[in-house]
Amino acid sequence: MNNLTKLSALVKELEALQPKLYGKDFLLTWQQDLDSLKAVMLVAEILQLLHKEKKPWRIFDYGLAISIFRDNSTRTRFSFASAVNGLGLGLSELDEVKSQIAHGETLRETANMISFLTEVIGIRDDMYPGEGHTYMTEVAEAVTDGFNEGVLAQRPTLVNLQCDLDHPTQSLSDLLKLKDYFGGWEQLKGKKIAMSWAYSPSYGKPLSVPQGVINLMTRFGMEVVLAHPKGYDLLPETLVTAADFAAKSGGSFKQTQSMEDAFRNADVVYPKSWAPMAVMQERTKLLRSGDKQGLKELELHCLAENATHMDWECDEDMMKLTKNGSALYEHCLPADISEVSCERGEVAKSVFERYRLHTYQEAGYKPFVIASMIFNSKIHSAADKLKSFV
Amino acid sequence: MNNLTKLSALVKELEALQPKLYGKDFLLTWQQDLDSLKAVMLVAEILQLLHKEKKPWRIFDYGLAISIFRDNSTRTRFSFASAVNGLGLGLSELDEVKSQIAHGETLRETANMISFLTEVIGIRDDMYPGEGHTYMTEVAEAVTDGFNEGVLAQRPTLVNLQCDLDHPTQSLSDLLKLKDYFGGWEQLKGKKIAMSWAYSPSYGKPLSVPQGVINLMTRFGMEVVLAHPKGYDLLPETLVTAADFAAKSGGSFKQTQSMEDAFRNADVVYPKSWAPMAVMQERTKLLRSGDKQGLKELELHCLAENATHMDWECDEDMMKLTKNGSALYEHCLPADISEVSCERGEVAKSVFERYRLHTYQEAGYKPFVIASMIFNSKIHSAADKLKSFV
Amino acid sequence: MNNLTKLSALVKELEALQPKLYGKDFLLTWQQDLDSLKAVMLVAEILQLLHKEKKPWRIFDYGLAISIFRDNSTRTRFSFASAVNGLGLGLSELDEVKSQIAHGETLRETANMISFLTEVIGIRDDMYPGEGHTYMTEVAEAVTDGFNEGVLAQRPTLVNLQCDLDHPTQSLSDLLKLKDYFGGWEQLKGKKIAMSWAYSPSYGKPLSVPQGVINLMTRFGMEVVLAHPKGYDLLPETLVTAADFAAKSGGSFKQTQSMEDAFRNADVVYPKSWAPMAVMQERTKLLRSGDKQGLKELELHCLAENATHMDWECDEDMMKLTKNGSALYEHCLPADISEVSCERGEVAKSVFERYRLHTYQEAGYKPFVIASMIFNSKIHSAADKLKSFV
Repeated sequence: MNNLTKLSALVKELEALQPKLYGKDFLLTWQQDLDSLKAVMLVAEILQLLHKEKKPWRIFDYGLAISIFRDNSTRTRFSFASAVNGLGLGLSELDEVKSQIAHGETLRETANMISFLTEVIGIRDDMYPGEGHTYMTEVAEAVTDGFNEGVLAQRPTLVNLQCDLDHPTQSLSDLLKLKDYFGGWEQLKGKKIAMSWAYSPSYGKPLSVPQGVINLMTRFGMEVVLAHPKGYDLLPETLVTAADFAAKSGGSFKQTQSMEDAFRNADVVYPKSWAPMAVMQERTKLLRSGDKQGLKELELHCLAENATHMDWECDEDMMKLTKNGSALYEHCLPADISEVSCERGEVAKSVFERYRLHTYQEAGYKPFVIASMIFNSKIHSAADKLKSFV
Repeated sequence: MNNLTKLSALVKELEALQPKLYGKDFLLTWQQDLDSLKAVMLVAEILQLLHKEKKPWRIFDYGLAISIFRDNSTRTRFSFASAVNGLGLGLSELDEVKSQIAHGETLRETANMISFLTEVIGIRDDMYPGEGHTYMTEVAEAVTDGFNEGVLAQRPTLVNLQCDLDHPTQSLSDLLKLKDYFGGWEQLKGKKIAMSWAYSPSYGKPLSVPQGVINLMTRFGMEVVLAHPKGYDLLPETLVTAADFAAKSGGSFKQTQSMEDAFRNADVVYPKSWAPMAVMQERTKLLRSGDKQGLKELELHCLAENATHMDWECDEDMMKLTKNGSALYEHCLPADISEVSCERGEVAKSVFERYRLHTYQEAGYKPFVIASMIFNSKIHSAADKLKSFV
Repeated sequence: MNNLTKLSALVKELEALQPKLYGKDFLLTWQQDLDSLKAVMLVAEILQLLHKEKKPWRIFDYGLAISIFRDNSTRTRFSFASAVNGLGLGLSELDEVKSQIAHGETLRETANMISFLTEVIGIRDDMYPGEGHTYMTEVAEAVTDGFNEGVLAQRPTLVNLQCDLDHPTQSLSDLLKLKDYFGGWEQLKGKKIAMSWAYSPSYGKPLSVPQGVINLMTRFGMEVVLAHPKGYDLLPETLVTAADFAAKSGGSFKQTQSMEDAFRNADVVYPKSWAPMAVMQERTKLLRSGDKQGLKELELHCLAENATHMDWECDEDMMKLTKNGSALYEHCLPADISEVSCERGEVAKSVFERYRLHTYQEAGYKPFVIASMIFNSKIHSAADKLKSFV
């Protein structure tokens, strides 16, 4: 099937959906209904095909896209830059001192002051539990007020580029890779995915990736197993929603403290390090109080605790436990690869190399997922507009 | 009256003017005749209406706009980014170490080296009395030479994004708000505006806003009163020109050392902190000589002096003195709001909140004022071009 | 001859060539055959004429150009920004900590992750002998793999914005200036150019400019003389290739340790400071081992050594030695001008001022040389495409 045939099949699928994305922000996948999630993914696939066919998909004559990165980023930064460029917007980055978390009046004012000709605001704020999503909500309210009060001629669409709760542009890219790999969403039903903690000689990695994965894959009927050592808990409310989603979709959501259990007979594995929620919360307190000594001690303590779980590595033996020894390996990248990026890490060199291309393809959906979120928010009849590009 | 009707009324007004903006820089409002100032404002209003109507107003196929910020900025930075994006230019920011004030050969060369495909250079350099405007003039001369000598195929237009003397994109936005609020320039005649110093727990704020306001509002027949405590003088030459303008326009320009006097029966109040000129000059000397101890002492001295004028606050009692107790409050933002951004500041929380939307609208003109300055400099027959966008 | 007549003459010249630039990177001039070099220069001249005639030359509907600057840059940064803007791309800069030289897996991954919608990657990495070109080659391999493996829908074109070996966008601009000044490539045959070291109170300037000049001008039949004090050697392999090129083109390549010898009867002089290769290599070692004390000592030692060669200045006496006392002075800018940018430098104030405009014009080719490299790599039939712009 060539690209254009694929493309029209996808547009047909899109036409059958009733997404509720027009005029909306995209902050958390669990705020969206299934049709909306599917529409985001279908439009992403269509935009990717248009790109492959060298057919432009510009929807703006002019306007700004603003990115606010409160954490370092290369991949997501370039994904966002690519997405908004393709849609026809100019990119302006708002630099904020990372520690300075402005709220209230200042935030309301700044959000409006930068938005007079702004169509999109992309925010990454993933370091502090309780902060990122709250911050995005405040920005959203500020620009809604500005638009309703006539200050802004258009309401900028917010896109969550990773918060403390969810990383929707990542998890939807992960899911698109699964859709492609297994041949459709229907094929995911009953497939087992192991979202597992893995050892890394680093500290303070956010929780949004595992939280995002368990709350998205459960909606598509997958058997989701979350594995981590004792103490490496995710935010409790994200476990509740994941269980609910599994119940509704006919999938399942289980937890274990054994990587082996999670990997056994898995169709997909997602081994990735994260910091324990309690440590992240403690860290936020220490950062706020400016306690440098405390921060140093916390880091040392946390690294020492990590080091007791070096056996949580996705190596060849671990992979042998999976279905036919050949589960698909997923990762949001960059992975901590043993003997490559560190002495001992999340994944063995040979395993990573075998799946390297798959992870690149997984990442390759992200610019189009971001573009799709914007597209669906701005274009009422997405399918018609997409057809006009062919 | 709908937007398009308004728009054609404004174009008609524009056609009756004889501005001298084509091929010119915009550095100081007092270098421009009245028709030119009006043309900048009219085109800004028209571009804003086109934006509201989602009609593009691109005039460039390609080319760069360069911004040089020698002082921190968020609002002006995004206003400039928005303006040049709408006009079709790509934005490149030239980072300079703030303290390094290059002149002479180096400046001449750099100005040309960055301008081979550059249509606009926007500069903010407001920290040092005697520096900012001089710097802009040198850049202007450098690119004029480059153009005349055939080095540059086009001469970049310079836009003053705030210098030591004037802040024209701000004062013209302030004036557009007044025009809209009172129903036209004619309605401003005889209206009293209090440009008043106000207390702020900060230090070193530039003088360009009050200098810009007294030199612009006096040209439209307003009764301008400048109020500040003893010692908080503006640059003397800006007082002379303001008095001249008032005499010519049939308005007036008065000074007082009482905020109450200024506010009494005022139609508009503009309470804003600034540093005394003598302090700014001393500071420049100390910065140049690298005297860190001296700078610290000057700051402490200045903050202590400020603190003796905490009663210069635009609070509810002060507002009651104004015409019907309901003068329009203007501010360039961000304001130092008592109990919000600081314990005690320029304006009481309740006053600011009552006028918040007005200040946002005031700020909302700025991207279009900047775009208009560029538009008028690049397009010979602005009215015809604007009509082609509708 | 007006611009459009010139333009069609140049297109005709272009049509007679058989360049091998389509789908290729531009890393080193000595990897390119003569037709390819000429095609880059001709297209650059044509694009410059289109720009003068205000005719757009956009070839992309959308897409990113990424710049990676591992050394400070203003001129090249703006040249690249201008070039890619004119071609229709959005610019994103990848900031890397300068000292962090990533290779291997990390580099392969990053190169792909930033390239999903990327058409061009421009790299400047000129500080470390043995590093810059190697780095570019690794990036090139990474995106070739990504493209061949289907990860990237298009292969980004790499442009060398200065490496440890060559500075092709500079040397081709230098050569275009010579072509214009002397009236054509044929006129360069037998002309003598002195590529001479010159004193500067600075330290650590890269070798790529002299290496690039001796390896490009020798290909056009020029009599190239390389002059420097004992110890200020270039990389040996670049001397071998320069000699080879001279032999093939019927020009010559000689070395001397006397600035006077080099200048005597020269048609063109290019006096410029650089660091001795041995010092650059030592410096790289010290940087890698983090030996700050060693770096300080090396700098002091090197500056002291430099200071023994203050007589290597392009002053009026030195210029009198050249053909009719009026050789053309070239420089990549910024020059260290005696009594202007430093007490004693590469060139006397009066000499520089006399040739200032020429150096500006020389620099003015650079944005178009960069654009041309991209243009030729992306457009199969460059001449036809260029004709469509007129």
